[in-house]
Amino acid sequence: MKISLNTKILDKNEQAAKQNREFLAGRKLDCLNLISSPGSGKTTILARTVADLKGKLRIGVIEGDIKTDHDSQRIRAAGAAAIQIETEGACHLSAQQVGWALNQLPTADLDIVFVENVGNLVCPSAFDLGESGRVVVLSIPEGDDKPAKYPGTFAQCDVVLINKIDLLVHLAFNLDRVLTDIHTLNPQAKVLQISAATGQGMQLWYDWLLNRRKKA
Amino acid sequence: MKISLNTKILDKNEQAAKQNREFLAGRKLDCLNLISSPGSGKTTILARTVADLKGKLRIGVIEGDIKTDHDSQRIRAAGAAAIQIETEGACHLSAQQVGWALNQLPTADLDIVFVENVGNLVCPSAFDLGESGRVVVLSIPEGDDKPAKYPGTFAQCDVVLINKIDLLVHLAFNLDRVLTDIHTLNPQAKVLQISAATGQGMQLWYDWLLNRRKKA
Repeated sequence: MKISLNTKILDKNEQAAKQNREFLAGRKLDCLNLISSPGSGKTTILARTVADLKGKLRIGVIEGDIKTDHDSQRIRAAGAAAIQIETEGACHLSAQQVGWALNQLPTADLDIVFVENVGNLVCPSAFDLGESGRVVVLSIPEGDDKPAKYPGTFAQCDVVLINKIDLLVHLAFNLDRVLTDIHTLNPQAKVLQISAATGQGMQLWYDWLLNRRKKA
Repeated sequence: MKISLNTKILDKNEQAAKQNREFLAGRKLDCLNLISSPGSGKTTILARTVADLKGKLRIGVIEGDIKTDHDSQRIRAAGAAAIQIETEGACHLSAQQVGWALNQLPTADLDIVFVENVGNLVCPSAFDLGESGRVVVLSIPEGDDKPAKYPGTFAQCDVVLINKIDLLVHLAFNLDRVLTDIHTLNPQAKVLQISAATGQGMQLWYDWLLNRRKKA
């Protein structure tokens, strides 16, 4: 019973994801799904990216939170269109919710849509949103055991942003272990060391983003 | 359909939680369910508690992780009995899993069982494990917006441990906002500022634990 129902929920999500993928392809829109623990710095990364890439990349953002619209306010203050989805308890965004939000955004005037998923290192990775790429954010204070403990999430992404790298000096964090574990789980994933707070390494991330645009 | 199935899963969990509660009551065992984001420091808190309260409180630990048994190894190294549950993808512990683990622990020789739930600030709070109390851990690097963004989790607990308080000097974190938000959501909750890494404030937590034992 459990399996058949979960299958039905996932089937419905998969149909909506397919529609989103077609919508994005029709408009040549890139779409990145950001997944991480609560507090890894997703919103700070996006707000800084919006401000720094003004005039270079036209960005829209879909914000997923259980409660509050603080994050979409922060993105709008940085200068991008943002749509907030409050999941009211649900632990991840669904493709249906993202489809609704895509229709609210001025997609004709955008190059890329970032979807900031609910802060949760587990559930969001099981739900295809129809995105064209997936970003996992891991912050230094979370500890160096996270790729090993959450292998499914790290195995299914295009890039891992190791954020808050400026805090490395204050904490016991084995960066070599993390790089090795990510490479074992996902040899194709690009891994970038950044600090959205200080700006360190952010250019690597911008180059990666702009390079995707050229290839598309 | 979604609701009816979820109800069935929760009903089954609730039955097992009731059995756990009876099992614990019959043995006069305290049982605390620890919930937090990945990397907030639950295992470090428990390992230090086990070592510091040796001879004062007989502790057993049930560790929940999606993958790996690193955490139960750390607890055993600190000197307590520990049972690892690998959930293999599931985003929370169930009461059935905890019931199984309680039967593996030497409960006749214990005063308290800590259940370290899967690192996830959302899903675990929806599943009653039959515990006698609930602890939410929030670490400073996660940011001061977490109680507002995850209200359900903070509303349902007996104590909030604000961990990594030693990092407060390095980060922009509005402690007053957090204390106010927690108080609004949960006026009864005790809030303790600690650092399991440096030991700061840990005595407050030990006093709280030992005081529970006296009252029981």
